[in-house]
Amino acid sequence: MEHGGDLLTYKDKYRGKLIDFSSNINPLGRPKGLDKAIIEDFKDLEAYPDIHYRQLKESVAGYLKCKTTNVILGNGAVEIINNFIILADRVVLFKPSFSEYELRARVHKKELLSINYLDDFSLNRDKLKKELKRGDLLILGNPNNPSGLRIPLEELIKVYKLLIEVGGFLLLDEAFYEFCPWDYDSILLFKEYDYENVSIIRAATKFFALPGLRLGYACGSDYTVEKLKGLEMPWSINSVANTAGQNIFSDKAYIEESKDYIKKEREFLLDELSKIRGINPYPSHTNFILIKLLNVDEERLFKYLLKEGILVRKCSSFKELGNNHIRIAVKDRQKNEILLEALKKLSRKGYLG
Amino acid sequence: MEHGGDLLTYKDKYRGKLIDFSSNINPLGRPKGLDKAIIEDFKDLEAYPDIHYRQLKESVAGYLKCKTTNVILGNGAVEIINNFIILADRVVLFKPSFSEYELRARVHKKELLSINYLDDFSLNRDKLKKELKRGDLLILGNPNNPSGLRIPLEELIKVYKLLIEVGGFLLLDEAFYEFCPWDYDSILLFKEYDYENVSIIRAATKFFALPGLRLGYACGSDYTVEKLKGLEMPWSINSVANTAGQNIFSDKAYIEESKDYIKKEREFLLDELSKIRGINPYPSHTNFILIKLLNVDEERLFKYLLKEGILVRKCSSFKELGNNHIRIAVKDRQKNEILLEALKKLSRKGYLG
Repeated sequence: MEHGGDLLTYKDKYRGKLIDFSSNINPLGRPKGLDKAIIEDFKDLEAYPDIHYRQLKESVAGYLKCKTTNVILGNGAVEIINNFIILADRVVLFKPSFSEYELRARVHKKELLSINYLDDFSLNRDKLKKELKRGDLLILGNPNNPSGLRIPLEELIKVYKLLIEVGGFLLLDEAFYEFCPWDYDSILLFKEYDYENVSIIRAATKFFALPGLRLGYACGSDYTVEKLKGLEMPWSINSVANTAGQNIFSDKAYIEESKDYIKKEREFLLDELSKIRGINPYPSHTNFILIKLLNVDEERLFKYLLKEGILVRKCSSFKELGNNHIRIAVKDRQKNEILLEALKKLSRKGYLG
Repeated sequence: MEHGGDLLTYKDKYRGKLIDFSSNINPLGRPKGLDKAIIEDFKDLEAYPDIHYRQLKESVAGYLKCKTTNVILGNGAVEIINNFIILADRVVLFKPSFSEYELRARVHKKELLSINYLDDFSLNRDKLKKELKRGDLLILGNPNNPSGLRIPLEELIKVYKLLIEVGGFLLLDEAFYEFCPWDYDSILLFKEYDYENVSIIRAATKFFALPGLRLGYACGSDYTVEKLKGLEMPWSINSVANTAGQNIFSDKAYIEESKDYIKKEREFLLDELSKIRGINPYPSHTNFILIKLLNVDEERLFKYLLKEGILVRKCSSFKELGNNHIRIAVKDRQKNEILLEALKKLSRKGYLG
């Protein structure tokens, strides 16, 4: 299955340093001070991490503003998604979305229902209402990947009530949450329902720029936490992720600076991209932008950009998108400008059609 | 499920530094030079690990003396065991053994056949022969936990041929392999069969004293590797484990020193333990020793030892052992003597019955 961030595969095809627009990581890099904390805890490598991750859960609970007993942990968000799927009778997806939702359902031989997003990437709630049944696990990216769009608050509440009605379960994958402008916090929103039939996944991977560490976390009801305990693998969060999760959330300045930075660069990129002939950026709430290619296929543009030292994410692995979309990450100003210049050059030369 | 190494649970019950005899980690600690390699690779935390782990697989293949295409990786050995179980029709276990074999089978709702080890912890091959059928996954600890015993070479070959005959699959869990005196190397042994219907798991966890890093690896046929690819989670090995796996295997001096050290201390401990009245150590090939308590139950001895600042592994979670066994790790001479002194003191006072 294709994913972003596969730099090594393309390194030999471009002699020089590739700029990776294919993986969606905070361009400000990991929080300062983290390295020191990790080094201080090196001795912990020689002991098993606390099998109950008590201190880590306290730290995550403080950040998510939920109770320690509501915290779910995983070796990246993918492991948490995987565990929920094991518990499901049937998995319901909207597409296009993160390929692992479907793949994990297939691994565990779960019945699968896929519904397409509408043309503007909003939910087809009528279809959902017709199809949903007891025991369904509905997984929704919020914001979704690759569209980059949040679910509007009213829409989310309607979908949730639908699930409660039929006895289904809603899993929100909010791995990109912090990159979005503030609209609502689903963890606070569903607190008043005691997270009945709903869980919300977040992750350190993207926003804290730590994809190598593998730290995913989520918030769910006491009942859900207990059910997951029955199937979680022991020590699945490594010691370094354990340390990181006890240090990164307190860096409020970094968190605010990152949010402001992404907002500014996303707006800059969307603005500039929309001026380039031959491509059509979709609106985005987060740190990546889906772009429709009007007259060239993804493979051709991908190769053009690779020659310029730029790696983007081809989107044909999201089958619903065909072969005329790419996804780019919001990076720092200098890199964003290199991408824009390359696209402008290709557009001027008529390569974008 | 109870595991060793749960220091935090007992920390508050003993005011002072607990010596952890419950988890079986190389007492010499992690290889020197590793910290430096990890720190140099800190920048990699901000990129996804290579999704194909190409360099890591080369390093592991060199250490295991197999081909790169034979290498299987996991977030600890447990994840590899879990993935094999997903592929199995039925899981066959000998008991007592590592609790996760059974637990992972139950998580994936697999049919399960448990056979008891004979009284001397050897395999009941007659019973196995009667019961085995096509599609079975037989998991054997080699050495097994908690007995600490290797499967004799001739016995192993007989069991393997049995599996080939019926069309089953043999998974050897050799997480403690390097601690054992040299008898045979199953990876070299099964190379001439191209790893047909057999895989061998090893891990950095125990011998390289890196339980916090979560690096498990295994050797299997090209066919098995391909089948597992279809269900492995992306990026399940974190960047730090990825770095470690490219550095630890070259430290031949550390590897030799560790083997010698464990051998000497295991023999010392076995010798001294056998002199203490009221307890009966079983022979062991590895870095832990199972001890039968002749006149006291495990809980009582556990509490006595906790008062002395010593944490041991109670074994009643291995149901076949009842409540009169403990397991201890081989540690450094100073710590081993502290344990022996404590046991001798309890024996003298008549607490061991």
